[in-house]
Amino acid sequence: MGTRLDMGRIRAARAVIDPVFLDSPLYRCDALWDKLGCAVSVKLETANPVRSFKGRGAELVASRLAADGGTAMVCASAGNLGQALAWSGRRRGLDVTVVARRGAPAVKLERIRAFGADLELVDGDFEVARAAAARLAREREVRLVEDSLDIETCEGAATIGLELAGSVSGGDAVLIALGGGAMATGVGHVVKTLAPGVEVICVQPLGAPAMTLSWRARRVVTTDTMDTIADGVAGRFPIPEVLDDLLQVADDAVLVREESIVAGMRMLLEDAGLVAEPSAALGVAAVLEDPGRFAGRHVVTIVCGSNTSIS
Amino acid sequence: MGTRLDMGRIRAARAVIDPVFLDSPLYRCDALWDKLGCAVSVKLETANPVRSFKGRGAELVASRLAADGGTAMVCASAGNLGQALAWSGRRRGLDVTVVARRGAPAVKLERIRAFGADLELVDGDFEVARAAAARLAREREVRLVEDSLDIETCEGAATIGLELAGSVSGGDAVLIALGGGAMATGVGHVVKTLAPGVEVICVQPLGAPAMTLSWRARRVVTTDTMDTIADGVAGRFPIPEVLDDLLQVADDAVLVREESIVAGMRMLLEDAGLVAEPSAALGVAAVLEDPGRFAGRHVVTIVCGSNTSIS
Repeated sequence: MGTRLDMGRIRAARAVIDPVFLDSPLYRCDALWDKLGCAVSVKLETANPVRSFKGRGAELVASRLAADGGTAMVCASAGNLGQALAWSGRRRGLDVTVVARRGAPAVKLERIRAFGADLELVDGDFEVARAAAARLAREREVRLVEDSLDIETCEGAATIGLELAGSVSGGDAVLIALGGGAMATGVGHVVKTLAPGVEVICVQPLGAPAMTLSWRARRVVTTDTMDTIADGVAGRFPIPEVLDDLLQVADDAVLVREESIVAGMRMLLEDAGLVAEPSAALGVAAVLEDPGRFAGRHVVTIVCGSNTSIS
Repeated sequence: MGTRLDMGRIRAARAVIDPVFLDSPLYRCDALWDKLGCAVSVKLETANPVRSFKGRGAELVASRLAADGGTAMVCASAGNLGQALAWSGRRRGLDVTVVARRGAPAVKLERIRAFGADLELVDGDFEVARAAAARLAREREVRLVEDSLDIETCEGAATIGLELAGSVSGGDAVLIALGGGAMATGVGHVVKTLAPGVEVICVQPLGAPAMTLSWRARRVVTTDTMDTIADGVAGRFPIPEVLDDLLQVADDAVLVREESIVAGMRMLLEDAGLVAEPSAALGVAAVLEDPGRFAGRHVVTIVCGSNTSIS
């Protein structure tokens, strides 16, 4: 497969990542099966200290930086990468600065601070935070961590693929939230390598469709604005290298409506007993919008984060 | 240790139990640390097909019954054991009948039926269901599964202890919901064997205190009534053999108020992103009621079930 990912490096990553993030639960959720008309397995990435899958990649970033003698890093984050880097950096004595938008969910900003990172808030959307983080890293001459572009973030996510590849087979579908693309390319690469008959379907909100439009056009398509509750996957400027990888591994990329995302969150909470942030409900939303496509099949959905307010 | 439990049998149980129930997440939850004033690790027993720890013991019961040529079993259940036996029995072609009280949480009764078990409802509390199940098993001449008395139910729970014993050390406390006693005696036996300096604290609702009163009196004490939202641990007639074991392994048994249980559930949901049924919040409730006892220490709480309605 002609992506930037490599199975040997992905397998080796398991030895570097703190075990608290590995081998997350994977199980059939019969209550969702009854509601959705297809067998649904949940890969639960929220039962760890940072409540999202980002710990896997953050561990790789932080351990390599520390091994190289680095002392500080800066990232832009919708909230979950920032928490994860703060957690992984603190354990290794690294200074972590997270640039986030002022409107990010309070629960995410609070946890970034609580994990000991410096938090810089900017007005505007995630792309403004990305630009500000790049400037800050340049000024300070420290490592800029770029989600989805930096290969460690993709390799970390790809370890999820190792854990689920044994449980899927031809005809099954894996539904992956699509934002910057680290999870989709990482998991997609492993699934397509180990279980090529499995359909890899990326799911993005209609309100933040840049990567999906790019995948369909086979070239980078940007959008001027975005509007979605799925803050964790909201971006406007796809990264060309990540798009190239996504074109190799994704069978489809679909867009879902906001009301489907909300319905998916509610179904995960009420029927599966799982707190899911909006991005983590994209897979269920995709089934809700196109039940005929999945009827009678087995789908795996990655519940990738739970950093949301319940009240 | 003079209990009915045996470390060799508990270790061997891991080979029998479906892996989907084993090696459940165990992690520090810093958001609870901030709120409770002590380091809190969560052992999460809800991320599996039956959403409670009861799958471990049910797997042992069902696999041994099937191996012995049995075809049917009957149990009384507050709801979680019934779901678990239904799940484990269905996979082995066993007929499962669950006797439950009509007032049990609807989500539990629905799932018992959905897993294919026959559900018999009785008026009254859990002790009425227990008596009815015993009658039914006698009439049908089939296996009666008695939670906490049948050693498989204790051994199943005890495998949780194997998974957490390596993460606790002298001065730490393990907080265990106390109902019939399977979890408290099973986990307690393993913890006291492998990490004797760890305090084993059982937690029960003030509204259903029979086992705690019995532990304190060192003899069976029954109650005439009970009243608690923690339906999963509500019983009035402690089993003598289980009490004998509990007296060997528990350092303390504490009673908590209903409002503390509700506050614990809310804290787990809002601060930890975890759906916990009332029984699963007893550990947090115990810390809330006596913060000084735990200040600065490390406590492990087993979030033992999530079968509750969120709405």
